[in-house]
Amino acid sequence: MTPLRIGLLGHGTVGAAFEELLGARAGRVEQLTGRRPEIAGVLTRTRGDFDEILARSDVVVELIGGVDDALRYLRAALESGCDVVTANKQLLSRHGEELWQLSRERGRSIGFEAAVAGVVPAIRVLREALAGTQIERVHGIVNGTTNFILSEMTRTACSYEAALAEAQRLGYAESDPSDDVGGSDAAAKMAILARLAFDAPIHIDDVRFEGIEQITQDDIGYARALGLALKLIGTAERIDGGISVRVHPAFLYAGHPLASVGGSFNAVTVEAEAITEITMSGPGAGGTQTASAVLADVIAAASGTQRPVPAAVSVPIIEDVTSAFYLHLRVIDRPGVLARIAQCLGEEEASIKSVVQRGLGEHAQLVMVIHPLPESRLRAALGAIAELDVVQAPPRAIRVIEEEFE
Amino acid sequence: MTPLRIGLLGHGTVGAAFEELLGARAGRVEQLTGRRPEIAGVLTRTRGDFDEILARSDVVVELIGGVDDALRYLRAALESGCDVVTANKQLLSRHGEELWQLSRERGRSIGFEAAVAGVVPAIRVLREALAGTQIERVHGIVNGTTNFILSEMTRTACSYEAALAEAQRLGYAESDPSDDVGGSDAAAKMAILARLAFDAPIHIDDVRFEGIEQITQDDIGYARALGLALKLIGTAERIDGGISVRVHPAFLYAGHPLASVGGSFNAVTVEAEAITEITMSGPGAGGTQTASAVLADVIAAASGTQRPVPAAVSVPIIEDVTSAFYLHLRVIDRPGVLARIAQCLGEEEASIKSVVQRGLGEHAQLVMVIHPLPESRLRAALGAIAELDVVQAPPRAIRVIEEEFE
Repeated sequence: MTPLRIGLLGHGTVGAAFEELLGARAGRVEQLTGRRPEIAGVLTRTRGDFDEILARSDVVVELIGGVDDALRYLRAALESGCDVVTANKQLLSRHGEELWQLSRERGRSIGFEAAVAGVVPAIRVLREALAGTQIERVHGIVNGTTNFILSEMTRTACSYEAALAEAQRLGYAESDPSDDVGGSDAAAKMAILARLAFDAPIHIDDVRFEGIEQITQDDIGYARALGLALKLIGTAERIDGGISVRVHPAFLYAGHPLASVGGSFNAVTVEAEAITEITMSGPGAGGTQTASAVLADVIAAASGTQRPVPAAVSVPIIEDVTSAFYLHLRVIDRPGVLARIAQCLGEEEASIKSVVQRGLGEHAQLVMVIHPLPESRLRAALGAIAELDVVQAPPRAIRVIEEEFE
Repeated sequence: MTPLRIGLLGHGTVGAAFEELLGARAGRVEQLTGRRPEIAGVLTRTRGDFDEILARSDVVVELIGGVDDALRYLRAALESGCDVVTANKQLLSRHGEELWQLSRERGRSIGFEAAVAGVVPAIRVLREALAGTQIERVHGIVNGTTNFILSEMTRTACSYEAALAEAQRLGYAESDPSDDVGGSDAAAKMAILARLAFDAPIHIDDVRFEGIEQITQDDIGYARALGLALKLIGTAERIDGGISVRVHPAFLYAGHPLASVGGSFNAVTVEAEAITEITMSGPGAGGTQTASAVLADVIAAASGTQRPVPAAVSVPIIEDVTSAFYLHLRVIDRPGVLARIAQCLGEEEASIKSVVQRGLGEHAQLVMVIHPLPESRLRAALGAIAELDVVQAPPRAIRVIEEEFE
């Protein structure tokens, strides 16, 4: 019997978990593929020779991370006739098109379920279950660190800093958490989901993103009082013949399928006229969990059931998106303040849905919800508001995802 | 270019929606498979000739329902070298093994995503994303009619009968709703999910099921007061070297991933040590939604990416499962009643977790939660309780799915 020889690049948390899982499930892999899997070689930053490993491999599994070396490895693997599996979101959100094209040309497969939302099968569902569906929108909670922090701030009413420290203590956040809390990790994942949902060549640079560093307990308290959930949400959607892909904190109405996704879990909702919507959720990280996604891709590669990623067709990237907004303003408590702020909003045709003013001695806090309007106009209004002498801190705006047809 | 010729059996709601969707997405199918799809013929109960349609088809799509004719059609299709796609849960929960074996022998594929939970990709995720995973448990809300009725009873505090009438008015329930409300529809779907999760030959007759006809507003009110959700839950799990597959109403703790699935939606949670758990949810029925699942299977068949269902290995079916229970008793309000009931429970080692007694004139209502115990012992205790002269109606028991390690 021909063995299934796997070249393993990277032996960190996921790499080590994959090697262990592969050993434990070798019999199952053999049952499904007719070939007994074996590790042909392991490359780390300090040991192993890539070319030697490649020469002995049928499938190359890239879990080493980084962009330039990983790109070189996967390119070489495809060119030499290997199937490849990768968990590298940064690589795919930058060089996916080159790799997917090479895979089509060489007739080899690329599996990358583990690159987005860990074991949550968002990639496979987009590539297969929804292959024939005209998708309209994808919403995702695709970063477990930020979802944990926001859940913790909601659960315990603690500060952002305390929740981050707790996430670091539990291993949900790295010592330098900036890629997670700043939104760029989620942006890379949304670029990949958007690429699959729309067959458009979305690069990470096409994704606008904001993080959660500015979220305060005030915002969480407001969300709780109104029965809203505050989440870091990735959105990819068709708008006016183009596509918008973005990541930002958002208030979700209570019935939204992502509103109840707590802790470090990830979840992805796909909307389309034909399917209404489907939602998938589960652990977005973890060694064994991610390794399980990698193993499924190895099985698919070895059984020839991994479909190619279709060629992409360029579409315009839409920058100016319409949203409802929550505004949080610190102002001097003085007659006429609300009128002046309302005037700045009115000049940009921003219509106020609700307003709450809370006095704090000489100061006051204004919280408003603004009906949907283009972000550019909201930004212009905020610019004018920030210039007012009665406004004491830069105004803060958080998007609101409302129930449609409410 | 060779066309992709599709023989369509059945032209009801789903069949007609499939034909329309196929027309609308023909370009996409061609892009993904290299073949332009066309309907080679349509068979209904009153028109078309199966053998003629089969002779002209590459893929046979069975949406005609029933068991005997459908079995004959699919057998003939596989034997003549066609791939097949079916949405027929009754057929697969009875004759799946024969069809899957035939498909392996002939090297043709069977797609059946639409047979369980509509467009929710439970089948594909079990067959592909979790192909290598040792699955421990599957929980499902796999019947939209009953989920709608229970959601409606919770939302509006109406009676079972009123909620059923509303479901019928909206088209979520048939005029004879017995397959749905009695649990046999869900049982067929759980048999199929269990078959895939455990590679064991589960027949619908192996599935014990109860429906929701006995659920009262009292039960719903109790669930609401405790923050529990009352759902019709299918469970398939490994227990003591065997497998249990069952369908029954259950109280779910508020954080359970299925607790927030409302209306006519379906959802499936898969648990395994390696993945922790993943949950999928979405519309479990609807013409276009189900047709979308069928279309994905047609694309998979035509692109050769539908993996065979592995051969099954028999395992014991476990009948006596341990559960926590909610008990609802109507008794005469008289000293010593609780003691006599507690004694019946104690003799079967049923331990009371909580009890609420409400007086209603001469009568009283006792609601208890019992710590987990084997169902056989609970049933024995209930038998003894029913014999007590102070008990005025047959005691009712509903399982409780508690948070693990609580």
